Amino acid sequence: MLENVSVLAFDADDTLWNNETLFREAERKWAAVMSDYGTLEELSDKLYETEAANMKELGFGAKPYLISVLETSVALAGDALTGSMVGEIIAAGREIMRNPATPLPGVRETLEAIRALRRYRMVLLTKGDLLDQEHKLERSGLAGCFDRVMITSDKSCKEYLQLCELEGIGPGSLAMVGNSFKSDIAPVLELGGWGIHIPSSVMWVHEKTEEFEHPQLIRIKVFSDLLSYVG
Amino acid sequence: MLENVSVLAFDADDTLWNNETLFREAERKWAAVMSDYGTLEELSDKLYETEAANMKELGFGAKPYLISVLETSVALAGDALTGSMVGEIIAAGREIMRNPATPLPGVRETLEAIRALRRYRMVLLTKGDLLDQEHKLERSGLAGCFDRVMITSDKSCKEYLQLCELEGIGPGSLAMVGNSFKSDIAPVLELGGWGIHIPSSVMWVHEKTEEFEHPQLIRIKVFSDLLSYVG
Repeated sequence: MLENVSVLAFDADDTLWNNETLFREAERKWAAVMSDYGTLEELSDKLYETEAANMKELGFGAKPYLISVLETSVALAGDALTGSMVGEIIAAGREIMRNPATPLPGVRETLEAIRALRRYRMVLLTKGDLLDQEHKLERSGLAGCFDRVMITSDKSCKEYLQLCELEGIGPGSLAMVGNSFKSDIAPVLELGGWGIHIPSSVMWVHEKTEEFEHPQLIRIKVFSDLLSYVG
Repeated sequence: MLENVSVLAFDADDTLWNNETLFREAERKWAAVMSDYGTLEELSDKLYETEAANMKELGFGAKPYLISVLETSVALAGDALTGSMVGEIIAAGREIMRNPATPLPGVRETLEAIRALRRYRMVLLTKGDLLDQEHKLERSGLAGCFDRVMITSDKSCKEYLQLCELEGIGPGSLAMVGNSFKSDIAPVLELGGWGIHIPSSVMWVHEKTEEFEHPQLIRIKVFSDLLSYVG
């Protein structure tokens, strides 16, 4: 049981709905356009390097991804890159921005059941592109499940402390639910809060991190397992 | 004098620092790369069409601009668009994201003088890309002048009401200072607040709107003129 927890915060991408799979699909389409310049794996490695170099300036999300993909394409193909190739690459990238954000199995029912308990303030806390995240929340139909929506450019101790201040609680009263150990779990545990980790099948390479055990860490397999810990 | 006003909100781009000029500079560089396909004016017209069509999905800022510029280039040049051209266009677009955000003349001194009055809560309210706006505020060195920073995907009545709720005031206690009549002034006047309009010399075409007179509208020429209305 989550002792003393009054605020449940939820990550969005790959916790409430699929997201990373859409990036992988765009990457496959990109690799098909760029097949003269390497295998999917080789091209992906090059892309990850560009993304890492751009991370501080461009941040996360579909638009930074698309800019990094185009820069990598120019670097690899030079003047052999044609307008049609660029058009196809952009079209594949824009598909990510049209993510229907369909709730993953059990998500809607579980959120509604927790809400019905009237025991927790419920917060959506997601990092990334402001407009893109707003659109996904809207399309998901889940907006009504949350008392607060917070979209930030990063998810580190700083942002979790900001949330605690806004909610008027200490970090010990916060539990964060999410798929990324690095962004959703580690900083909250460090502050003295609770982390509820639901690993997703597809993980963004820049979110990979060392995991560890902790008395306030709960690992669940599917979203609806949450119901065993609240109430 | 601003009767009953307790919260002064400030727009950022082209109110506290230059921004639109950097887009114009990128556009000139783009037009130079694309000179086979039209004059600066003709190319700009095409770009504005693409931007308008993309606005709802992509929003505002340097990244949406860059995606729209590349789409327009593909549409105009087709396979005559080369990797080098794409590289130059991306590099010009990325310059916008490195805006030093140097405060415009008088801005820092005026903000500090108003702050020293200890009479108003001071809010930065800007729409656009989250990370990009955060970076500009950091580079400007003005972050310490504000009690609250709010970055939104739009600036309509909805966002101003949200700000009033966060500050615990009615719209009549809000004055908004900015260069865009459409985003900074009209919605605040509509809600019953005060609008302080400082027109900028360069105006984004998508912000052009019909202006009107209003008893709670104040027009000033330069930022330091604000000092005549507070105190």
